[in-house]
Amino acid sequence: MLSDIDLAMLKQLLGPPGVAQRRAVAKAITLVESTRADHRLRAEALVEALRPHAGRAFRLGVSGVPGVGKSTFIEALGVLLVEQGHRVAVLTVDPSSRISGGSILGDKTRMERLSAHERAFVRPSPARGKLGGVAEGTREALLVCEAAGHDIILVETVGAGQSETSVARMTDMFVLLLLPNAGDDLQAIKMGAMEHADLVVINKADLDKAAAARALSQVAGSLRHAGLHAGPGLGRRVEGAWTPHVLQLSALDGTGLHAFYEAVTQFRKFREASGQLQKQRQEQDQAWMWERIEAGLDRRFREHPAVKAALPDISAQVQSGMLSPSLAATRLLDLAI
Amino acid sequence: MLSDIDLAMLKQLLGPPGVAQRRAVAKAITLVESTRADHRLRAEALVEALRPHAGRAFRLGVSGVPGVGKSTFIEALGVLLVEQGHRVAVLTVDPSSRISGGSILGDKTRMERLSAHERAFVRPSPARGKLGGVAEGTREALLVCEAAGHDIILVETVGAGQSETSVARMTDMFVLLLLPNAGDDLQAIKMGAMEHADLVVINKADLDKAAAARALSQVAGSLRHAGLHAGPGLGRRVEGAWTPHVLQLSALDGTGLHAFYEAVTQFRKFREASGQLQKQRQEQDQAWMWERIEAGLDRRFREHPAVKAALPDISAQVQSGMLSPSLAATRLLDLAI
Repeated sequence: MLSDIDLAMLKQLLGPPGVAQRRAVAKAITLVESTRADHRLRAEALVEALRPHAGRAFRLGVSGVPGVGKSTFIEALGVLLVEQGHRVAVLTVDPSSRISGGSILGDKTRMERLSAHERAFVRPSPARGKLGGVAEGTREALLVCEAAGHDIILVETVGAGQSETSVARMTDMFVLLLLPNAGDDLQAIKMGAMEHADLVVINKADLDKAAAARALSQVAGSLRHAGLHAGPGLGRRVEGAWTPHVLQLSALDGTGLHAFYEAVTQFRKFREASGQLQKQRQEQDQAWMWERIEAGLDRRFREHPAVKAALPDISAQVQSGMLSPSLAATRLLDLAI
Repeated sequence: MLSDIDLAMLKQLLGPPGVAQRRAVAKAITLVESTRADHRLRAEALVEALRPHAGRAFRLGVSGVPGVGKSTFIEALGVLLVEQGHRVAVLTVDPSSRISGGSILGDKTRMERLSAHERAFVRPSPARGKLGGVAEGTREALLVCEAAGHDIILVETVGAGQSETSVARMTDMFVLLLLPNAGDDLQAIKMGAMEHADLVVINKADLDKAAAARALSQVAGSLRHAGLHAGPGLGRRVEGAWTPHVLQLSALDGTGLHAFYEAVTQFRKFREASGQLQKQRQEQDQAWMWERIEAGLDRRFREHPAVKAALPDISAQVQSGMLSPSLAATRLLDLAI
């Protein structure tokens, strides 16, 4: 299925680290994130070829509201890890592009120190297609980075509901960053995010130590509360054994970063030893399949010739009140499936 | 299309207020909320027959986190309105049932004073089906209540992301209730909810007047912030002309309730005079059609014989890692659409 060009890209991607591999990784990610129909076919073939080489990295999701210091945190963590010999990739899931065509995360040139490091690969957030989920392509991008030998993948997202769920569903561990001043109304501590979090980090703890301590105890209380209210199907919390931790940290001066990574390592060992990591990835694959089905249904429906032909008229009838939305939906569905 | 039984129900529903009508409304809502295939067909026919009689009520969405006092607020408002001669219906959109099968809103017997009033109809939240959106059936229930002559419909939901969006998309005005103590981490002031809100109410203002005043100014700031950041497609805010208000209120002793309803009336007049109310409802009908299409695609796909036959095997191949989730999705999609 792979063309000669894609085969050459694959070979460089699986080859030794260096400029050629880096370029191949960037190209491959562009391909898997593309929404063009021909690109999707090529991307699917590429991912099939990559899959046997992926899956050995640890996948860490990082979320938090704008201003919480995600970039600074990820850069500090990334530099620590590459200095320990790890190869680190940073990907972003940007919910804003879906809504407005803009970008919360990707506009600025960021993480300059980490980007410049030969063992790091930082991918700015691309403009996403409108179809499909908020994270269309990011799972594949993750596999690309893993196949190229990156052993720690950091997936960053802004705290905005759907995108957090997406990131939690593609990572092994989910970290939520909060500001020490929990009273800030932009903080928006989300029940959803709390339910996903394996580890909560009070960042910028250096700014206000008393506030950070207060936030720590508040969050610990919320985590207990969320734990009590988490229903079946809400994800990793249900298995019960891992109790989410809360830590203080200052990404700016590095205080708490080693303790943070120790907690990550502890979590990873715990989940690997219990077999939960593997089990979670299998569940994520099932969820991934269903996400793809949902996106594919939407895409195929909108591109269906009979639907395209009938839509303007039916839509106008709904607009004028002649036809109810339910009946209109049924008529259009009958044309396609 | 309507059976004799459903025709009789329709007749009672459109007939004079009283016990028979009340019973017909309850039955009709049960029907439109059902996920059984035969019920869906009957419900569709019923809604078509009702539509010419609906659309004259004002639809008010009310949201807020658990504990903010939604029930007390809605009961106090409802009693005020029925005493003014209005006929009030209260519906709930409950996101919890979709996730866990449980119910955040509907378990308790509530709003006893309002429920007992002859000009009020209070519908406890039903157990929803798993398929479709969080608000499957609520739009139709709303039309049922309108056709029966209720002229104010209150749609209540707990603050939990998706359900707020659903409610904002089926109402003419969206009210967000907040607690005076914005520092409470269960408060979870959501950017999403803020973006939908036409009116923000600081409830329980009697508990802590200083905190309520602080919350008022914080929220006013957030609303300005949200206004700046609202992109196109985010809903009613974009049209620009209405500036969301913030009010203090104590539902318990009734302070602020008249001022609240005055703001609602002012909003309603403003939107009706400018034609925005009608325009918004037309847009909502389009969105409703697409929601139904999405739910219908999912349902028809899962019920498709070829998909049902192939799913266990393909799912097992994904589970074992033999098949990638993307390719599995493509194979299943090819069987159906």
